[in-house]
Amino acid sequence: MSTATASMKECIENCQECQTTCADMLTSHCLSEGGDHVGQDHVKLMLDCIAACAACVDFMSRNSDHHAHYCKACAEICKACADSCEKVGNMDKCVKCCRKCHESCSSMAS
Amino acid sequence: MSTATASMKECIENCQECQTTCADMLTSHCLSEGGDHVGQDHVKLMLDCIAACAACVDFMSRNSDHHAHYCKACAEICKACADSCEKVGNMDKCVKCCRKCHESCSSMAS
Amino acid sequence: MSTATASMKECIENCQECQTTCADMLTSHCLSEGGDHVGQDHVKLMLDCIAACAACVDFMSRNSDHHAHYCKACAEICKACADSCEKVGNMDKCVKCCRKCHESCSSMAS
Amino acid sequence: MSTATASMKECIENCQECQTTCADMLTSHCLSEGGDHVGQDHVKLMLDCIAACAACVDFMSRNSDHHAHYCKACAEICKACADSCEKVGNMDKCVKCCRKCHESCSSMAS
Repeated sequence: MSTATASMKECIENCQECQTTCADMLTSHCLSEGGDHVGQDHVKLMLDCIAACAACVDFMSRNSDHHAHYCKACAEICKACADSCEKVGNMDKCVKCCRKCHESCSSMAS
Repeated sequence: MSTATASMKECIENCQECQTTCADMLTSHCLSEGGDHVGQDHVKLMLDCIAACAACVDFMSRNSDHHAHYCKACAEICKACADSCEKVGNMDKCVKCCRKCHESCSSMAS
Repeated sequence: MSTATASMKECIENCQECQTTCADMLTSHCLSEGGDHVGQDHVKLMLDCIAACAACVDFMSRNSDHHAHYCKACAEICKACADSCEKVGNMDKCVKCCRKCHESCSSMAS
Repeated sequence: MSTATASMKECIENCQECQTTCADMLTSHCLSEGGDHVGQDHVKLMLDCIAACAACVDFMSRNSDHHAHYCKACAEICKACADSCEKVGNMDKCVKCCRKCHESCSSMAS
Protein backbone atom coordinates (compact mmCIF):
# COMPACT_ATOMS: atom_id res chain seq x y z
CA MET A 1 0.00 0.00 0.00
CA SER A 2 2.34 2.66 1.20
CA THR A 3 5.09 3.75 -1.13
CA ALA A 4 7.24 5.08 1.72
CA THR A 5 10.63 3.43 1.92
CA ALA A 6 12.64 2.77 5.08
CA SER A 7 14.88 5.75 4.37
CA MET A 8 11.89 8.02 3.83
CA LYS A 9 10.42 6.94 7.17
CA GLU A 10 13.72 7.73 8.86
CA CYS A 11 13.88 11.11 7.12
CA ILE A 12 10.33 11.95 8.25
CA GLU A 13 11.30 11.12 11.83
CA ASN A 14 14.45 13.25 11.68
CA CYS A 15 12.46 16.18 10.27
CA GLN A 16 9.82 15.79 13.00
CA GLU A 17 12.49 15.76 15.71
CA CYS A 18 14.29 18.77 14.20
CA GLN A 19 11.03 20.74 13.83
CA THR A 20 9.88 20.25 17.43
CA THR A 21 13.34 20.60 19.00
CA CYS A 22 13.99 23.91 17.20
CA ALA A 23 10.50 25.22 18.00
CA ASP A 24 10.95 24.35 21.67
CA MET A 25 14.46 25.82 21.85
CA LEU A 26 13.45 29.02 20.05
CA THR A 27 10.51 29.77 22.35
CA SER A 28 11.82 28.45 25.70
CA HIS A 29 15.57 29.10 25.33
CA CYS A 30 16.44 31.77 22.70
CA LEU A 31 13.56 34.14 23.51
CA SER A 32 14.36 33.74 27.22
CA GLU A 33 18.14 34.26 26.88
CA GLY A 34 18.02 37.32 24.61
CA GLY A 35 21.23 38.81 23.22
CA ASP A 36 22.71 36.89 20.28
CA HIS A 37 19.94 34.32 20.73
CA VAL A 38 17.40 36.84 19.39
CA GLY A 39 19.54 38.17 16.56
CA GLN A 40 17.51 38.79 13.41
CA ASP A 41 19.43 36.34 11.22
CA HIS A 42 19.45 33.61 13.88
CA VAL A 43 15.71 33.75 14.65
CA LYS A 44 14.84 33.92 10.95
CA LEU A 45 16.92 30.78 10.35
CA MET A 46 15.27 28.99 13.27
CA LEU A 47 11.85 29.86 11.82
CA ASP A 48 12.95 28.76 8.34
CA CYS A 49 14.23 25.49 9.78
CA ILE A 50 10.97 24.76 11.64
CA ALA A 51 8.90 25.54 8.51
CA ALA A 52 11.22 23.61 6.17
CA CYS A 53 11.02 20.49 8.34
CA ALA A 54 7.23 20.75 8.59
CA ALA A 55 6.93 21.06 4.79
CA CYS A 56 9.21 18.04 4.32
CA VAL A 57 7.12 15.90 6.68
CA ASP A 58 3.99 16.99 4.82
CA PHE A 59 5.24 16.22 1.31
CA MET A 60 6.91 12.92 2.25
CA SER A 61 3.96 11.61 4.26
CA ARG A 62 1.64 12.37 1.32
CA ASN A 63 3.96 10.31 -0.90
CA SER A 64 4.32 13.34 -3.16
CA ASP A 65 6.21 12.99 -6.44
CA HIS A 66 7.63 16.43 -5.69
CA HIS A 67 9.08 15.77 -2.21
CA ALA A 68 12.72 15.97 -3.39
CA HIS A 69 12.47 19.76 -3.82
CA TYR A 70 11.43 20.14 -0.20
CA CYS A 71 14.11 17.75 1.07
CA LYS A 72 16.77 19.65 -0.87
CA ALA A 73 15.66 23.03 0.51
CA CYS A 74 15.38 21.57 4.02
CA ALA A 75 18.90 20.12 3.83
CA GLU A 76 20.33 23.52 2.93
CA ILE A 77 18.36 25.38 5.60
CA CYS A 78 19.20 22.83 8.33
CA LYS A 79 22.89 23.24 7.54
CA ALA A 80 22.66 27.03 7.79
CA CYS A 81 20.65 26.75 11.02
CA ALA A 82 23.19 24.37 12.59
CA ASP A 83 25.99 26.81 11.72
CA SER A 84 24.06 29.71 13.25
CA CYS A 85 23.32 27.70 16.42
CA GLU A 86 27.02 26.85 16.78
CA LYS A 87 27.95 30.51 16.43
CA VAL A 88 25.37 31.65 18.99
CA GLY A 89 26.51 28.89 21.34
CA ASN A 90 24.84 26.83 24.05
CA MET A 91 22.46 25.28 21.52
CA ASP A 92 23.90 21.78 21.23
CA LYS A 93 20.50 20.08 20.99
CA CYS A 94 19.63 22.15 17.90
CA VAL A 95 23.03 21.70 16.28
CA LYS A 96 22.74 17.94 16.65
CA CYS A 97 19.24 17.50 15.24
CA CYS A 98 19.87 20.02 12.42
CA ARG A 99 23.01 18.15 11.32
CA LYS A 100 21.15 14.82 11.47
CA CYS A 101 18.21 16.24 9.50
CA HIS A 102 20.58 17.78 6.94
CA GLU A 103 22.11 14.34 6.36
CA SER A 104 18.88 12.46 5.74
CA CYS A 105 17.26 15.25 3.70
CA SER A 106 20.37 15.38 1.48
CA SER A 107 20.00 11.65 0.82
CA MET A 108 16.29 11.93 0.03
CA ALA A 109 16.87 14.90 -2.29
CA SER A 110 19.20 13.12 -4.69
CA MET B 1 14.55 25.42 29.77
CA SER B 2 11.74 23.64 28.01
CA THR B 3 8.29 23.93 29.53
CA ALA B 4 7.06 20.79 27.78
CA THR B 5 5.82 18.14 30.17
CA ALA B 6 6.03 14.38 29.69
CA SER B 7 2.35 14.23 28.70
CA MET B 8 2.81 17.03 26.18
CA LYS B 9 5.73 15.19 24.60
CA GLU B 10 3.62 12.03 24.34
CA CYS B 11 0.76 14.04 22.81
CA ILE B 12 3.10 15.59 20.24
CA GLU B 13 4.29 12.10 19.26
CA ASN B 14 0.74 10.78 18.95
CA CYS B 15 -0.23 13.75 16.78
CA GLN B 16 2.84 13.25 14.59
CA GLU B 17 2.04 9.56 14.13
CA CYS B 18 -1.63 10.28 13.38
CA GLN B 19 -0.74 13.03 10.88
CA THR B 20 1.71 10.95 8.84
CA THR B 21 -0.31 7.71 9.03
CA CYS B 22 -3.48 9.42 7.78
CA ALA B 23 -1.59 11.30 5.06
CA ASP B 24 0.02 8.07 3.88
CA MET B 25 -3.25 6.09 3.99
CA LEU B 26 -5.20 8.84 2.20
CA THR B 27 -2.79 9.09 -0.71
CA SER B 28 -1.60 5.48 -1.05
CA HIS B 29 -4.74 3.59 0.05
CA CYS B 30 -7.97 5.65 -0.17
CA LEU B 31 -7.16 7.37 -3.47
CA SER B 32 -6.07 4.01 -4.89
CA GLU B 33 -9.12 2.02 -3.69
CA GLY B 34 -11.78 4.53 -4.77
CA GLY B 35 -15.48 3.93 -3.92
CA ASP B 36 -16.37 4.74 -0.31
CA HIS B 37 -12.71 5.55 0.30
CA VAL B 38 -13.03 8.71 -1.80
CA GLY B 39 -16.42 9.78 -0.46
CA GLN B 40 -16.57 13.56 0.05
CA ASP B 41 -17.20 13.42 3.81
CA HIS B 42 -14.51 10.79 4.41
CA VAL B 43 -11.74 12.56 2.47
CA LYS B 44 -12.64 15.90 4.03
CA LEU B 45 -12.34 14.34 7.50
CA MET B 46 -9.00 12.75 6.62
CA LEU B 47 -7.73 16.17 5.47
CA ASP B 48 -9.11 17.83 8.61
CA CYS B 49 -7.41 15.20 10.75
CA ILE B 50 -4.02 15.67 9.05
CA ALA B 51 -4.25 19.46 9.41
CA ALA B 52 -5.54 19.33 13.00
CA CYS B 53 -2.65 17.09 14.07
CA ALA B 54 -0.10 19.33 12.31
CA ALA B 55 -1.52 22.43 14.04
CA CYS B 56 -1.40 20.66 17.42
CA VAL B 57 2.26 19.69 16.94
CA ASP B 58 3.04 23.27 15.96
CA PHE B 59 1.33 24.94 18.93
CA MET B 60 2.59 22.43 21.51
CA SER B 61 6.19 22.44 20.29
CA ARG B 62 6.19 26.26 20.46
CA ASN B 63 5.05 26.00 24.10
CA SER B 64 2.07 28.17 23.17
CA ASP B 65 -0.24 29.37 25.95
CA HIS B 66 -3.06 28.73 23.49
CA HIS B 67 -2.35 25.08 22.62
CA ALA B 68 -5.41 23.76 24.50
CA HIS B 69 -7.77 25.12 21.81
CA TYR B 70 -5.92 23.14 19.16
CA CYS B 71 -5.80 19.98 21.27
CA LYS B 72 -9.55 20.21 21.90
CA ALA B 73 -10.35 20.66 18.20
CA CYS B 74 -7.94 17.87 17.27
CA ALA B 75 -9.54 15.49 19.79
CA GLU B 76 -12.97 16.08 18.26
CA ILE B 77 -11.76 15.73 14.66
CA CYS B 78 -9.73 12.57 15.39
CA LYS B 79 -12.82 10.96 16.92
CA ALA B 80 -14.91 11.81 13.86
CA CYS B 81 -12.15 10.57 11.54
CA ALA B 82 -11.83 7.27 13.43
CA ASP B 83 -15.59 6.74 13.12
CA SER B 84 -15.47 7.51 9.39
CA CYS B 85 -12.54 5.11 8.88
CA GLU B 86 -14.41 2.32 10.72
CA LYS B 87 -17.46 2.87 8.53
CA VAL B 88 -15.43 2.84 5.29
CA GLY B 89 -13.62 -0.29 6.49
CA ASN B 90 -10.17 -1.75 5.92
CA MET B 91 -8.51 1.26 7.56
CA ASP B 92 -7.45 -0.24 10.90
CA LYS B 93 -4.16 1.65 11.02
CA CYS B 94 -5.99 4.99 10.85
CA VAL B 95 -8.67 3.99 13.35
CA LYS B 96 -6.00 2.99 15.84
CA CYS B 97 -3.85 6.12 15.63
CA CYS B 98 -6.90 8.44 15.52
CA ARG B 99 -8.32 6.86 18.71
CA LYS B 100 -4.92 7.14 20.40
CA CYS B 101 -4.52 10.78 19.33
CA HIS B 102 -8.06 11.56 20.46
CA GLU B 103 -7.20 10.24 23.94
CA SER B 104 -4.04 12.28 24.47
CA CYS B 105 -5.43 15.45 22.88
CA SER B 106 -8.47 15.23 25.16
CA SER B 107 -6.15 15.07 28.17
CA MET B 108 -4.08 18.04 26.99
CA ALA B 109 -7.20 20.12 26.28
CA SER B 110 -8.59 20.01 29.79
CA MET C 1 -20.34 24.26 -6.11
CA SER C 2 -18.53 26.16 -3.40
CA THR C 3 -20.16 26.30 0.00
CA ALA C 4 -18.17 29.38 1.02
CA THR C 5 -20.37 32.31 1.96
CA ALA C 6 -19.56 35.99 1.44
CA SER C 7 -18.65 36.39 5.12
CA MET C 8 -16.36 33.34 4.99
CA LYS C 9 -14.55 34.80 1.97
CA GLU C 10 -14.08 38.07 3.82
CA CYS C 11 -12.81 36.22 6.89
CA ILE C 12 -10.32 34.25 4.78
CA GLU C 13 -9.01 37.52 3.32
CA ASN C 14 -8.67 39.13 6.76
CA CYS C 15 -6.79 36.07 8.06
CA GLN C 16 -4.48 36.12 5.03
CA GLU C 17 -3.74 39.81 5.53
CA CYS C 18 -3.15 39.36 9.27
CA GLN C 19 -0.88 36.34 8.71
CA THR C 20 1.39 38.02 6.18
CA THR C 21 1.44 41.42 7.88
CA CYS C 22 2.44 39.91 11.24
CA ALA C 23 5.05 37.63 9.62
CA ASP C 24 6.56 40.60 7.78
CA MET C 25 6.51 42.86 10.86
CA LEU C 26 8.01 40.16 13.11
CA THR C 27 10.96 39.45 10.83
CA SER C 28 11.64 42.90 9.37
CA HIS C 29 10.61 45.14 12.28
CA CYS C 30 10.57 43.37 15.69
CA LEU C 31 13.73 41.31 15.13
CA SER C 32 15.47 44.42 13.82
CA GLU C 33 14.36 46.76 16.64
CA GLY C 34 15.14 44.41 19.55
CA GLY C 35 14.25 45.41 23.13
CA ASP C 36 10.57 44.98 23.97
CA HIS C 37 9.98 43.92 20.38
CA VAL C 38 11.79 40.62 21.03
CA GLY C 39 10.26 39.96 24.44
CA GLN C 40 9.43 36.28 24.90
CA ASP C 41 5.68 36.77 25.38
CA HIS C 42 5.38 39.20 22.46
CA VAL C 43 7.24 37.05 19.93
CA LYS C 44 5.37 33.93 21.05
CA LEU C 45 2.06 35.76 20.50
CA MET C 46 3.17 36.97 17.06
CA LEU C 47 4.05 33.37 16.12
CA ASP C 48 0.74 32.10 17.53
CA CYS C 49 -1.11 34.75 15.54
CA ILE C 50 0.63 33.86 12.27
CA ALA C 51 -0.06 30.14 12.81
CA ALA C 52 -3.65 30.69 13.95
CA CYS C 53 -4.46 32.74 10.84
CA ALA C 54 -2.83 30.15 8.56
CA ALA C 55 -4.86 27.33 10.17
CA CYS C 56 -8.06 29.37 9.78
CA VAL C 57 -7.40 29.97 6.08
CA ASP C 58 -6.72 26.26 5.64
CA PHE C 59 -9.87 25.00 7.37
CA MET C 60 -12.18 27.59 5.83
CA SER C 61 -10.87 27.18 2.27
CA ARG C 62 -11.36 23.40 2.59
CA ASN C 63 -15.00 24.07 3.58
CA SER C 64 -14.36 22.09 6.75
CA ASP C 65 -17.28 21.34 9.07
CA HIS C 66 -14.86 22.01 11.92
CA HIS C 67 -13.67 25.49 10.92
CA ALA C 68 -15.50 27.24 13.80
CA HIS C 69 -12.99 25.86 16.35
CA TYR C 70 -10.13 27.44 14.43
CA CYS C 71 -11.96 30.75 13.98
CA LYS C 72 -12.71 30.89 17.70
CA ALA C 73 -9.10 30.20 18.68
CA CYS C 74 -7.85 32.70 16.07
CA ALA C 75 -10.20 35.40 17.38
CA GLU C 76 -8.83 34.99 20.90
CA ILE C 77 -5.18 34.93 19.79
CA CYS C 78 -5.58 37.96 17.47
CA LYS C 79 -7.04 39.95 20.36
CA ALA C 80 -4.13 39.02 22.63
CA CYS C 81 -1.64 39.82 19.84
CA ALA C 82 -3.21 43.23 19.19
CA ASP C 83 -2.98 44.05 22.90
CA SER C 84 0.68 42.99 22.98
CA CYS C 85 1.47 45.05 19.87
CA GLU C 86 -0.16 48.13 21.42
CA LYS C 87 1.90 47.68 24.59
CA VAL C 88 5.17 47.27 22.68
CA GLY C 89 4.29 50.30 20.57
CA ASN C 90 5.09 51.41 17.04
CA MET C 91 3.23 48.41 15.59
CA ASP C 92 0.07 50.09 14.29
CA LYS C 93 -0.11 47.94 11.14
CA CYS C 94 -0.29 44.78 13.27
CA VAL C 95 -2.75 46.22 15.77
CA LYS C 96 -5.08 47.18 12.93
CA CYS C 97 -5.07 43.86 11.06
CA CYS C 98 -5.26 41.83 14.30
CA ARG C 99 -8.35 43.77 15.46
CA LYS C 100 -9.95 43.35 12.03
CA CYS C 101 -9.19 39.62 11.99
CA HIS C 102 -10.48 39.23 15.54
CA GLU C 103 -13.80 40.75 14.46
CA SER C 104 -14.42 38.51 11.46
CA CYS C 105 -13.16 35.35 13.17
CA SER C 106 -15.49 36.03 16.11
CA SER C 107 -18.42 36.24 13.68
CA MET C 108 -17.44 33.01 11.90
CA ALA C 109 -17.00 31.16 15.20
CA SER C 110 -20.52 31.67 16.48
CA MET D 1 11.18 48.30 7.17
CA SER D 2 9.77 45.53 5.08
CA THR D 3 12.07 44.00 2.52
CA ALA D 4 9.16 42.75 0.41
CA THR D 5 9.20 44.11 -3.12
CA ALA D 6 6.17 44.85 -5.26
CA SER D 7 6.67 41.65 -7.21
CA MET D 8 6.93 39.61 -4.02
CA LYS D 9 3.66 41.07 -2.78
CA GLU D 10 1.99 40.16 -6.05
CA CYS D 11 3.44 36.65 -5.87
CA ILE D 12 2.15 36.21 -2.30
CA GLU D 13 -1.34 37.26 -3.48
CA ASN D 14 -1.26 34.85 -6.42
CA CYS D 15 -0.17 32.00 -4.15
CA GLN D 16 -2.93 32.84 -1.64
CA GLU D 17 -5.54 32.87 -4.40
CA CYS D 18 -4.25 29.60 -5.89
CA GLN D 19 -4.15 27.90 -2.47
CA THR D 20 -7.72 28.78 -1.48
CA THR D 21 -9.22 28.26 -4.95
CA CYS D 22 -7.71 24.78 -5.26
CA ALA D 23 -8.70 23.85 -1.70
CA ASP D 24 -12.27 24.97 -2.34
CA MET D 25 -12.47 23.22 -5.74
CA LEU D 26 -10.99 19.98 -4.38
CA THR D 27 -13.43 19.70 -1.49
CA SER D 28 -16.59 21.17 -3.01
CA HIS D 29 -16.20 20.16 -6.67
CA CYS D 30 -13.79 17.23 -7.22
CA LEU D 31 -14.88 15.19 -4.19
CA SER D 32 -18.51 15.82 -5.16
CA GLU D 33 -18.12 14.95 -8.87
CA GLY D 34 -16.12 11.74 -8.41
CA GLY D 35 -14.78 9.83 -11.47
CA ASP D 36 -11.65 11.41 -12.98
CA HIS D 37 -11.95 14.21 -10.44
CA VAL D 38 -10.90 11.83 -7.64
CA GLY D 39 -8.15 10.05 -9.59
CA GLN D 40 -5.11 9.37 -7.39
CA ASP D 41 -2.67 11.45 -9.44
CA HIS D 42 -5.08 14.40 -9.77
CA VAL D 43 -5.98 14.64 -6.07
CA LYS D 44 -2.32 14.23 -5.05
CA LEU D 45 -1.39 17.12 -7.35
CA MET D 46 -4.19 19.29 -5.98
CA LEU D 47 -2.92 18.61 -2.43
CA ASP D 48 0.67 19.31 -3.51
CA CYS D 49 -0.44 22.58 -5.11
CA ILE D 50 -2.32 23.72 -1.98
CA ALA D 51 0.67 22.88 0.24
CA ALA D 52 3.24 24.38 -2.14
CA CYS D 53 1.34 27.69 -2.29
CA ALA D 54 0.97 27.79 1.52
CA ALA D 55 4.71 27.18 1.98
CA CYS D 56 5.50 29.93 -0.54
CA VAL D 57 3.29 32.44 1.27
CA ASP D 58 4.94 31.47 4.57
CA PHE D 59 8.55 31.84 3.36
CA MET D 60 7.95 35.04 1.40
CA SER D 61 5.97 36.78 4.15
CA ARG D 62 8.77 35.96 6.63
CA ASN D 63 11.23 37.64 4.21
CA SER D 64 13.21 34.40 4.18
CA ASP D 65 16.56 34.31 2.40
CA HIS D 66 15.55 30.83 1.24
CA HIS D 67 12.20 31.65 -0.37
CA ALA D 68 13.45 31.05 -3.92
CA HIS D 69 13.55 27.26 -3.36
CA TYR D 70 9.88 27.28 -2.41
CA CYS D 71 8.91 29.53 -5.32
CA LYS D 72 10.74 27.25 -7.76
CA ALA D 73 9.04 24.11 -6.41
CA CYS D 74 5.66 25.88 -6.39
CA ALA D 75 6.09 27.00 -10.00
CA GLU D 76 6.73 23.41 -11.10
CA ILE D 77 3.84 21.96 -9.08
CA CYS D 78 1.36 24.65 -10.23
CA LYS D 79 2.23 23.86 -13.84
CA ALA D 80 1.64 20.14 -13.29
CA CYS D 81 -1.61 20.85 -11.44
CA ALA D 82 -2.89 23.14 -14.22
CA ASP D 83 -2.16 20.39 -16.78
CA SER D 84 -3.99 17.82 -14.65
CA CYS D 85 -6.99 20.13 -14.22
CA GLU D 86 -7.18 20.70 -17.98
CA LYS D 87 -7.12 16.95 -18.60
CA VAL D 88 -9.84 16.25 -16.01
CA GLY D 89 -11.91 19.10 -17.46
CA ASN D 90 -14.48 21.50 -16.06
CA MET D 91 -11.90 23.04 -13.72
CA ASP D 92 -11.26 26.37 -15.45
CA LYS D 93 -10.97 28.32 -12.20
CA CYS D 94 -8.09 26.11 -11.05
CA VAL D 95 -6.34 26.11 -14.42
CA LYS D 96 -6.41 29.90 -14.48
CA CYS D 97 -5.05 30.52 -10.96
CA CYS D 98 -2.44 27.74 -11.27
CA ARG D 99 -1.09 29.23 -14.53
CA LYS D 100 -1.00 32.70 -12.95
CA CYS D 101 0.76 31.39 -9.84
CA HIS D 102 3.23 29.44 -11.98
CA GLU D 103 4.14 32.67 -13.78
CA SER D 104 4.83 34.76 -10.69
CA CYS D 105 6.58 31.96 -8.79
CA SER D 106 8.87 31.39 -11.76
CA SER D 107 9.83 35.06 -11.71
CA MET D 108 10.49 35.03 -7.96
CA ALA D 109 12.59 31.86 -8.20
CA SER D 110 15.17 33.25 -10.58
